[in-house]
Amino acid sequence: MIKVVLLGGGNLAFHLTNCLLAAKNIELVQVYNRSINKIEYLKSKTLITSNLLDLIEADIYIIAVSDDAISDLSSKLNFKNKLVVHTSGAASLKVLKSKSQQGVFYPLQTFSKDKKINFSNIPICIEADSESNLILLEKLAKTISKNCYNINSEQRKHLHVAAVFVNNFVNHLYHIGNQICDKNNIPFEILLPIIKETAVKIESLSPFEAQTGPAKRNDLKTIKNHKSILNKHQKEIYTLLTKSIYATYGKKL
Amino acid sequence: MIKVVLLGGGNLAFHLTNCLLAAKNIELVQVYNRSINKIEYLKSKTLITSNLLDLIEADIYIIAVSDDAISDLSSKLNFKNKLVVHTSGAASLKVLKSKSQQGVFYPLQTFSKDKKINFSNIPICIEADSESNLILLEKLAKTISKNCYNINSEQRKHLHVAAVFVNNFVNHLYHIGNQICDKNNIPFEILLPIIKETAVKIESLSPFEAQTGPAKRNDLKTIKNHKSILNKHQKEIYTLLTKSIYATYGKKL
Repeated sequence: MIKVVLLGGGNLAFHLTNCLLAAKNIELVQVYNRSINKIEYLKSKTLITSNLLDLIEADIYIIAVSDDAISDLSSKLNFKNKLVVHTSGAASLKVLKSKSQQGVFYPLQTFSKDKKINFSNIPICIEADSESNLILLEKLAKTISKNCYNINSEQRKHLHVAAVFVNNFVNHLYHIGNQICDKNNIPFEILLPIIKETAVKIESLSPFEAQTGPAKRNDLKTIKNHKSILNKHQKEIYTLLTKSIYATYGKKL
Repeated sequence: MIKVVLLGGGNLAFHLTNCLLAAKNIELVQVYNRSINKIEYLKSKTLITSNLLDLIEADIYIIAVSDDAISDLSSKLNFKNKLVVHTSGAASLKVLKSKSQQGVFYPLQTFSKDKKINFSNIPICIEADSESNLILLEKLAKTISKNCYNINSEQRKHLHVAAVFVNNFVNHLYHIGNQICDKNNIPFEILLPIIKETAVKIESLSPFEAQTGPAKRNDLKTIKNHKSILNKHQKEIYTLLTKSIYATYGKKL
């Protein structure tokens, strides 16, 4: 049984708490949050506290707070010889300032409070300051997910920005598609199957192989027509991404 | 039974042919392609020809060729009083130059020859020059798909460019994510679950609601860190899309 204390009350903390409570071989012994209201709902399931001095004994302390708060929170953990990990994709191992041992436990997924998440498919990227801590983190990761990867701080920085491209920016392109539909009285749901197929396709083809469309096939007439019906802002994005696809396949616009 | 002749041998023609051959209440009586080699494999299943003068009688003639070839091919169909449709998202109804009646039968999906496609989930966008032809097209569409929409030429133009954003450009962002992973010895498969979740999430939340990430939460420190590790080309795209997300949520960069 791995004893865990979780610190945080945001989206990731919320989903991770529920996952840890349900997991076999893990005992979530306590949840800390600086405002008790946000974790009040856990009262019947585990210990809760808003006082760092009340933290109880555990094997791993998981800090799931915003990136900027990790250093400060970790510096206030006064115990030694425990494993303290953060869950951030953007922060290095070194932002942890506790006197304890250190690690990273980064579940690479997008979390919204209103959207249920199945952790078993989420890649958990782990890093630790020692081999034995890495083994402990791997054990924790494999209890809740099928996919565990050793990713160091330098790699994680790059992985995080890659995730911004394939998640944040992709979602924003969905939003632009949605805007175009709304403006022309087209139900956005028409685009949902192609959106899903685009995501699923790259499980069997690389994105390089999967590319289609006017920019890929050098269809200047369609590109010109498209630009003529976009607003200034959309056209700027259209032009840059079209140029980028051209460059990828060795053509010039 | 709706009798159909299909004209074309590309990706869409290939998938549509297979779908029509398997469909109930549709008889694919002939497939035409200007080069016979490409459709030779259909010989045992239906009539094939590379000569437009040999086209046989049918209810609907479906032109599934590249956008630029639709006008020319349709102008060579000399019969009258038949329904001739094209399958293009980018071309207006009026590019059809046959003496016959006209329509559009546009399956909104991304087609690669090597990737199997289930038509039953593909939205079919139809348009026709008369109410009775629209009814015939709707009958055809509903035979192979659950989703059929009336979309006129003006709307279809916008829908097509929206599809470029959510499919072509999204796939290109996947490619950039893949490049970043390759360069840093990170397996790209780590990103597949977040890619899929991003696509599935907007079935229950709008893209506007689903947006997360540093640009959305005004996290200037992370944005600065990201920019510092991207190459010039990636940084240009990162900066423009970040600016666009800022503008969407009423902030200025």
